[in-house]
Amino acid sequence: MIVVLRLGHRPSRDKRVTTHVALTARAFGAQEVWVSTKDIALEKTVESIVARFGGDFVIKTGVKWREAIRSWTGKVVHLTMYGERLNDALKSIKGQDLLVVVGAEKVPREVYELADVNVSVGNQPHSEIAALAVLMHRLTDDDILYRDLDGRLTVLPNPRGKTVVDNSKETHKTHS
Amino acid sequence: MIVVLRLGHRPSRDKRVTTHVALTARAFGAQEVWVSTKDIALEKTVESIVARFGGDFVIKTGVKWREAIRSWTGKVVHLTMYGERLNDALKSIKGQDLLVVVGAEKVPREVYELADVNVSVGNQPHSEIAALAVLMHRLTDDDILYRDLDGRLTVLPNPRGKTVVDNSKETHKTHS
Repeated sequence: MIVVLRLGHRPSRDKRVTTHVALTARAFGAQEVWVSTKDIALEKTVESIVARFGGDFVIKTGVKWREAIRSWTGKVVHLTMYGERLNDALKSIKGQDLLVVVGAEKVPREVYELADVNVSVGNQPHSEIAALAVLMHRLTDDDILYRDLDGRLTVLPNPRGKTVVDNSKETHKTHS
Repeated sequence: MIVVLRLGHRPSRDKRVTTHVALTARAFGAQEVWVSTKDIALEKTVESIVARFGGDFVIKTGVKWREAIRSWTGKVVHLTMYGERLNDALKSIKGQDLLVVVGAEKVPREVYELADVNVSVGNQPHSEIAALAVLMHRLTDDDILYRDLDGRLTVLPNPRGKTVVDNSKETHKTHS
């Protein structure tokens, strides 16, 4: 089981970035995302995607992060540009139950200590969304990106246009 | 050479997401990012990262996207949740000069036709930052994430704390 824990979310400023974090977690095979700040609008945004595109991904907001980290029985992985190399870290975390911690701007020092592993996806400043995506991609099978989530809407790979199956109407809509 | 072309950027709304796109492009080994809307503040943000962390990454904003796509002599790769599977697309694009097109919300149909390849990193809605990161990661060598960019600041992998080398002062600062 993989759960993503998002720290330091500020609802107005981080609305879009945290939404990307949550949807990336879902698309790449995490089961849940926990956000340290309460944000009902964010919950609704993510839940509406789940309602349309399927699966049983869960979002919880207002989660007490210290307790969440301390009570996690698997490994705690903190994504940071300061951490050890991804390839080194993967050996000790692949196949385990993971709580993957991603911060917004500044992460409390305590997190570096509470984490079992501090992992960098490159030592350059870039994006917690990018780091999360690559970590998840390296932890999981390629097929997970194209798994059938039994949603109302299913998108089928198409090299030219858009193919969307609306399973509620059993229609196939292709623009190409 | 890899250049990332960002379409549909709205300076106030997309400020942070487009910054993540640009920094992800840089960290994962693209040479330039071109943004279709003029945005001096965005240029300054990205250039200040380059000034501190090194390399010769270029950002251009206010780029005419149709002309940019039409005059590109390598392959044009459009990232979209509707596109063909990543593994299928990689065969035809790896090792080529690529213009990687990433949209904000809605991308004009024309882009699907102008692109040589429409590629999906999963057929679920998630994030153009995540999609770009995984595509770049699959196109390049792992070591690119840890390459020395000869910047004023160099971050060194550290499993516990933060190690930042300030090359202008030739000091090594480690908190751990």
